[in-house]
Amino acid sequence: MNLPSKYLENAVDAFASLPGIGKRTALRLTLHLLKKDKGQVLKFADTFKDLILEVKSCKKCHNLSDQEICSICQSPKRDTSLICVVEDIRDILAIESTQQYKGIYHVLGGLISPMDGVGPNDLTITHLEARVKSEQVTEVILALSATMEGDTTNFYLYRKLNSLEVKISTIARGIGIGDELEYTDEITLGKSILNRLPFENSLTN
Amino acid sequence: MNLPSKYLENAVDAFASLPGIGKRTALRLTLHLLKKDKGQVLKFADTFKDLILEVKSCKKCHNLSDQEICSICQSPKRDTSLICVVEDIRDILAIESTQQYKGIYHVLGGLISPMDGVGPNDLTITHLEARVKSEQVTEVILALSATMEGDTTNFYLYRKLNSLEVKISTIARGIGIGDELEYTDEITLGKSILNRLPFENSLTN
Repeated sequence: MNLPSKYLENAVDAFASLPGIGKRTALRLTLHLLKKDKGQVLKFADTFKDLILEVKSCKKCHNLSDQEICSICQSPKRDTSLICVVEDIRDILAIESTQQYKGIYHVLGGLISPMDGVGPNDLTITHLEARVKSEQVTEVILALSATMEGDTTNFYLYRKLNSLEVKISTIARGIGIGDELEYTDEITLGKSILNRLPFENSLTN
Repeated sequence: MNLPSKYLENAVDAFASLPGIGKRTALRLTLHLLKKDKGQVLKFADTFKDLILEVKSCKKCHNLSDQEICSICQSPKRDTSLICVVEDIRDILAIESTQQYKGIYHVLGGLISPMDGVGPNDLTITHLEARVKSEQVTEVILALSATMEGDTTNFYLYRKLNSLEVKISTIARGIGIGDELEYTDEITLGKSILNRLPFENSLTN
């Protein structure tokens, strides 16, 4: 693309540097901005400055926050003996929206993935160990994706935490609510038979 | 979504205000920015400030430019007697990439669309008329989309310019190169039979 202005080109490149946005979409977004008021676009730009300058990582759980300690860790209503380990803050949002969990969190910041060059030291695993040792933690719930990387990380965490006096659990894997048996893959179905539950647990609410 | 930081929320809202970007994608993009260096994100933000403060609309043709007059209008190599009327600057990019056109352009800034509340006065049609009257223009090529709005605008422009001494043409409509007859809609196929060309014109290049 041979754009008629270098500022236009810079803005297109900026958008195109974001994941999942190609050059054409980037141009569409840039032209959309050009149709807005000057004030609106300046505010749009400032939003990202504020973001990078103001948003902090919670010192306890690595959730994002405006303060040093996030609102979940600060809340007196949460059960601090329960730590749910997640990959990133989107998982916290997903779990919070279920309104089923009253413990606190620990954000790993990724999953162990040798293919992508992510090792245990790139994650907040040492900090998690320290938390389990120093805080009054009774259970660590591993809530990672059911992928190769998730399983690898689960296993690594299990080995690290197993020697400590803490219960380690993982979220249940099985047939999703609303799924049909016929279309469920055999590994999930097999696991869900092996890990069958007392009937009472299966009732939704 | 109940985000843990208001700055995070603002950035997500900013991304989500762009066309085709939902809240989930906006969050993904925002978290992507947060993983970058502070300097990179500040530069990202500044790009949009520069965009809105520096990019101008060409005084002659309404193309975007860093200068008052765009590079196409300034070029001594272009045939200024030929004006190609397009909807927006993306169409200029598309036509320029064909390397088949050596005239200049006029960007309307949209198409007449009563449904969207866009009337002739919202477009640069008066300026186009003035250009045809004052510049040495021999031909106006209407290169608008083959849609209802494009046709309406074509017809409106034809009525406005017809009284002036200028040839008015539209880009050819017919079977796209590489298309199969069998799968072409009947209106296009019908038009392409009515507007058939001398055989020599049909050879690609």
